[in-house]
Amino acid sequence: MNETQRQRYRAIVEYDGSDFAGYQRQPEEFRTVQGELESALSRLGQGNIPVTAAGRTDSGVHATGQVISFDLNWKHPHEKLVLAINAHLSEDVAVRNVEAVSSDFHPRFNACRRAYRYHIELCDNGARRPLTRRRKWQVFKPLNLEAMNTAASFLIGEQDFATFGMPPQGNNTVREIFAAEWSQVDNELTFYIQANAFLYRMVRSITGTLKLVGDGSWSVEAFKQALDAAERKQSAASAPPWGLYLESVTYKNDTQ
Amino acid sequence: MNETQRQRYRAIVEYDGSDFAGYQRQPEEFRTVQGELESALSRLGQGNIPVTAAGRTDSGVHATGQVISFDLNWKHPHEKLVLAINAHLSEDVAVRNVEAVSSDFHPRFNACRRAYRYHIELCDNGARRPLTRRRKWQVFKPLNLEAMNTAASFLIGEQDFATFGMPPQGNNTVREIFAAEWSQVDNELTFYIQANAFLYRMVRSITGTLKLVGDGSWSVEAFKQALDAAERKQSAASAPPWGLYLESVTYKNDTQ
Repeated sequence: MNETQRQRYRAIVEYDGSDFAGYQRQPEEFRTVQGELESALSRLGQGNIPVTAAGRTDSGVHATGQVISFDLNWKHPHEKLVLAINAHLSEDVAVRNVEAVSSDFHPRFNACRRAYRYHIELCDNGARRPLTRRRKWQVFKPLNLEAMNTAASFLIGEQDFATFGMPPQGNNTVREIFAAEWSQVDNELTFYIQANAFLYRMVRSITGTLKLVGDGSWSVEAFKQALDAAERKQSAASAPPWGLYLESVTYKNDTQ
Repeated sequence: MNETQRQRYRAIVEYDGSDFAGYQRQPEEFRTVQGELESALSRLGQGNIPVTAAGRTDSGVHATGQVISFDLNWKHPHEKLVLAINAHLSEDVAVRNVEAVSSDFHPRFNACRRAYRYHIELCDNGARRPLTRRRKWQVFKPLNLEAMNTAASFLIGEQDFATFGMPPQGNNTVREIFAAEWSQVDNELTFYIQANAFLYRMVRSITGTLKLVGDGSWSVEAFKQALDAAERKQSAASAPPWGLYLESVTYKNDTQ
């Protein structure tokens, strides 16, 4: 198979992060999403197929809209490719919306916005909820949504977010946040956050700190001061990974 | 410990049925919800505590509102009892709303209504959804909600439901259904069904047959005829267990 005959494809990937040691491929003994995807693609008979992703999620973090790319020579309809790949993937990961893209498409470098969603479930004291234990952060204290949203509003715009994470490469900790808002339906609080890009651990670090604003441990002003200090040590503990979902990745030209 | 000093308690139980061989206790090697509950209660230092439940769910079926009763001598506040029991239960089962009831309360015999909910997720062809794989029945064909609701409306009232299940005891297959309705939010179809009591496999059998009405395999009239025939062999295949939830059990006098 001549590699130059291959077409580049983009696909959306959904996974249940519970039993993965994160997205990124690691030495043999760790089960990763990238490892699963590359293993499934390698069974299509064209040798090893490297997979590139928009973002690297941590162990336990889920995705409903991760974006990947890979190169393949596929003569059949795209829908058949979805079925062929999913048939080789384990039940906790699947692809959808496979489409042909230009050969210079890169899911990380070409991405202009990423969006994550974080789910908190408010539970009565001691009454943990078995059905959502790997899907939401169960919190046993009342949370003040208004205070959490006031604090979240300070995040909007281009700022130095060093308080909330480390850069994956280099030392630039400036990012631009376009949306950061909590909403509530019944006992579920959902935090939606969209940025041009995120620092390592940034969403969980922000969420964990906003939760402290919600339960009264931190004031809204303390949150603002911690943000403005732009020092990693100013952040509170991270929210647990199982409430976090990589929801979508946006590209400048959505047909590229 | 004198058993006459014991107080009867009622509790609501939630469980993720995925890793249980059903509710009802079975020989050693099977992991059951009843077995987990009795094992947790036996660790409170008052010997073996038998647990009685409102209904016996099948392997893989979930519950958000199963009701149980047990007898215990507990000197501390009820909230502490919730914490003590949950501390001994595995993460896929938990109790809540523990309350003292009269010594003749029986969760099955005193129940006057049971309600179940069944979740279907409509998926694009081949695009299975990893995050909901143990929570909803993923269906890859469009379903006609109106036809499903027309067929479901025939279920209302007191009738012989022999088509859709076997009695747990005896041979009376007459039950009274108070509500049976599908609703849709985005890609999720939910079937809510409430009756005085259900036959064995009845909700899954009804749901599996209504799904065939939805995808056009069965006409609404064929559903009506199968129901009226009152013969078990008239039913279509059962819906899978992982979309089904025992949601609530109602008692005549809710403070009894």
